[in-house]
Amino acid sequence: MQVSVDQIRTTSAAALIAHGAGDWQAAEVARAVARAEETGNVICGLYYLESYCLQLASGRVNGTVEPQVHAPRPGAVTADARLGFAQPAFARALPLALDAARANGIAALAVAHSHTCTSLGYFTEQIAAAGLIGIGVTNASAIVAGPGGRRPILGTNPIAITIPGDGDGPPAMHADFSTAAVALGKITMARAAGEAIPPGWAVDAEGRPTTDPAAALGGALVSAAGYKGWALGLMVEALAAGLTGSVNSLDVKGLKLADGPPHDLGQYYILIDPGAHGGALADRFATVARAVADDPGVRIPGAPRRRLDPVDVPDALWQLALALAVPQT
Amino acid sequence: MQVSVDQIRTTSAAALIAHGAGDWQAAEVARAVARAEETGNVICGLYYLESYCLQLASGRVNGTVEPQVHAPRPGAVTADARLGFAQPAFARALPLALDAARANGIAALAVAHSHTCTSLGYFTEQIAAAGLIGIGVTNASAIVAGPGGRRPILGTNPIAITIPGDGDGPPAMHADFSTAAVALGKITMARAAGEAIPPGWAVDAEGRPTTDPAAALGGALVSAAGYKGWALGLMVEALAAGLTGSVNSLDVKGLKLADGPPHDLGQYYILIDPGAHGGALADRFATVARAVADDPGVRIPGAPRRRLDPVDVPDALWQLALALAVPQT
Repeated sequence: MQVSVDQIRTTSAAALIAHGAGDWQAAEVARAVARAEETGNVICGLYYLESYCLQLASGRVNGTVEPQVHAPRPGAVTADARLGFAQPAFARALPLALDAARANGIAALAVAHSHTCTSLGYFTEQIAAAGLIGIGVTNASAIVAGPGGRRPILGTNPIAITIPGDGDGPPAMHADFSTAAVALGKITMARAAGEAIPPGWAVDAEGRPTTDPAAALGGALVSAAGYKGWALGLMVEALAAGLTGSVNSLDVKGLKLADGPPHDLGQYYILIDPGAHGGALADRFATVARAVADDPGVRIPGAPRRRLDPVDVPDALWQLALALAVPQT
Repeated sequence: MQVSVDQIRTTSAAALIAHGAGDWQAAEVARAVARAEETGNVICGLYYLESYCLQLASGRVNGTVEPQVHAPRPGAVTADARLGFAQPAFARALPLALDAARANGIAALAVAHSHTCTSLGYFTEQIAAAGLIGIGVTNASAIVAGPGGRRPILGTNPIAITIPGDGDGPPAMHADFSTAAVALGKITMARAAGEAIPPGWAVDAEGRPTTDPAAALGGALVSAAGYKGWALGLMVEALAAGLTGSVNSLDVKGLKLADGPPHDLGQYYILIDPGAHGGALADRFATVARAVADDPGVRIPGAPRRRLDPVDVPDALWQLALALAVPQT
C-alpha cells in the first residue's frame, strides 16, 4: 500500500519506543528506516523493524544508552555505541569528524560496539551532504567463505562510497554494495518467497555451488569476483572489527535473531576533503559523467538518487509495523 | 634464464640511466622493477623496462626532474611528480606521510602528475613495512567500459591493500588487483602469445562479449563483478585523478606507447595507524587467519609474500634488458 515517508518514520519511531528505545535514539533509527524506504532500499528499511523491536525487548540491543565520542588523534574520531544502535552513535560523532576532516584533509570515524548499521550508504550520504567524500565499511555476521572454501568466515562486509556533487545538489556518485557476490537479504528474501537463487552466489555446507537459498544459508555465500571481493572483505574486517576493537564477523550471531549476545559490530568511515590537495575533483568527475552519458545504457551509480514518496509498502509489512507501534502495556 | 634480483636491479638502473634518467631517479625505479620480479609480478617488472627507456628517450617521461613535496593540511601530503616517474616522488614524500598518519591517526598521500606507477602494491607494501595500513589507488589509460556499455571510460584503476603484520614480520595481508575483470597486461600478453582470452573479460568495439584479445583492445574491458567494480573504478578515478588534479584516464594514451603526451596520472594513498582508535587489529586479524587456515584451500591474499631469488626471466626479455643497459653514444 502507499505510505508516506513521514508515516514510515513516525510509525518506526513509535514501534522502537514501544519496545524500549529512548526518544532520541528511536528518532535517529527511524530516520534511517524511512530513508531506506524512500530510496527503494527494501532490504534495509521496514524489513528490519521487527527485529529491532524484538532485540530491544530481549536486550540484544540497548535502546537507551548514550554513545561516547572522543577524538584520540586530531584526525581520528571514535564513537563507542556501547552496544546500542549505530545511528545515534554516528549522529553524535559526525560533526566532530567533519571538522577533523576539514582541518586535516582526511579523517576517520570509527563506530565501535554497535548494533548493525543496516544501510551503510545512509551514513556516507550524510558525509557527502556536508561536501566531503565518504567511504564506509562494516562487518556483519559470518556468512561468506573464501574462494574454494566452505566455512563462513566473513560477513557480507559492504563498502559504501558517496562522492559529493556541487553545493547543495545531489551526490555525483552513490554506491553501497556487499563484497560478497550478493547481499544476505537477497538470500533470505528468496527463501521467504520460495524462489531459487542464481548460480554463482553461494555454496552448500560441503562447499558445492548451490541455487537453493536454504542450502546457501546452511553453507556460505561466495565473494564478489573471487579473490578481489575476498581481499576487500578482509580489508573491511580489519578496518571495521580490528581498528574499532569490535568483534569479528565470526563471533556475531545472525543479525535478525531476536535473542543472543549483542551484535558488537564496527563501522569505519573515511572522510576526505575534496580540496585538501588542490586538485580538480568536480571538473574531472564531470568529464567522466559526460562520457558516461554519451554511452547509452551506462550510468553513474546512484546519480541521480531516486526518491519515492509515498512508498509502495507490502500490506503485511505495513500492518506489522502498525502493530509493533501499539504501546505495550 | 636465472637472474639474481640484484642483477635485475642494477641492469634496470643502467638501462634507465643510459636513456637519460638521473642516477637517484633510476635507482628508485629499478628497485621497483626488481621487487616486481622478486614477487612474481611479471607484468610490472622487466616487461615495462623497454617502454620506460623509449619514453625517456622521447620525452614522454622526465627522468631527471625533482619531485615537489608539501603538506597543505596536517593529514594531507602532496607529491608533485612533475611528469617524472612515480617511484621517486613517492620516496621523497613517504617519510612526511608516515609522520602525518602517526600524528593524526590517518593521512593521505597524493602523488600528482606522474608516470605510471606500474605495481601499486609496491607502494602500499612500503607503508605497511612502517607499521601502518596502506590502501592505494591509481588511474590509468581508458580501457574499461561501464556495465552494458562499449566506450572505454576508466583505466583498469587498481586498488592495493597491505595490512601490516607484527613488528618486522611480513604483512598480514597484501592484495593488489584491478577493478576491471582483469589487468590490461593479461590481455596484451595473450595477444602477444596468440592466445584467446576467457569469456567475461572484455567486449568488442560494438559492445559484444569477445574472447579475441585484439578485439578486446579495440573495444573495452568490463568491470569486475559488474556494478561493484564499476563503482570502485569510479571511486579510484575520483581519488587518483580528481583529488590530485592529474588527468582522467580518458585523456591518457596507452601507457607503453613510446611517444605521446606524458601520462600525467595520479596515485592516492591512505595511511592508517592501526592503533589510532585503540582497537585490536592484530588480535582480530589473527583470529580470521586461524579460521582461514582451518578451511583447506583458502588463503589470506599475499600472506606469506613469495620471494624469488634468482628469478626465472624469459631469455629474450633478459637479452633486451642487457641491450638497453649498454650506454648510448
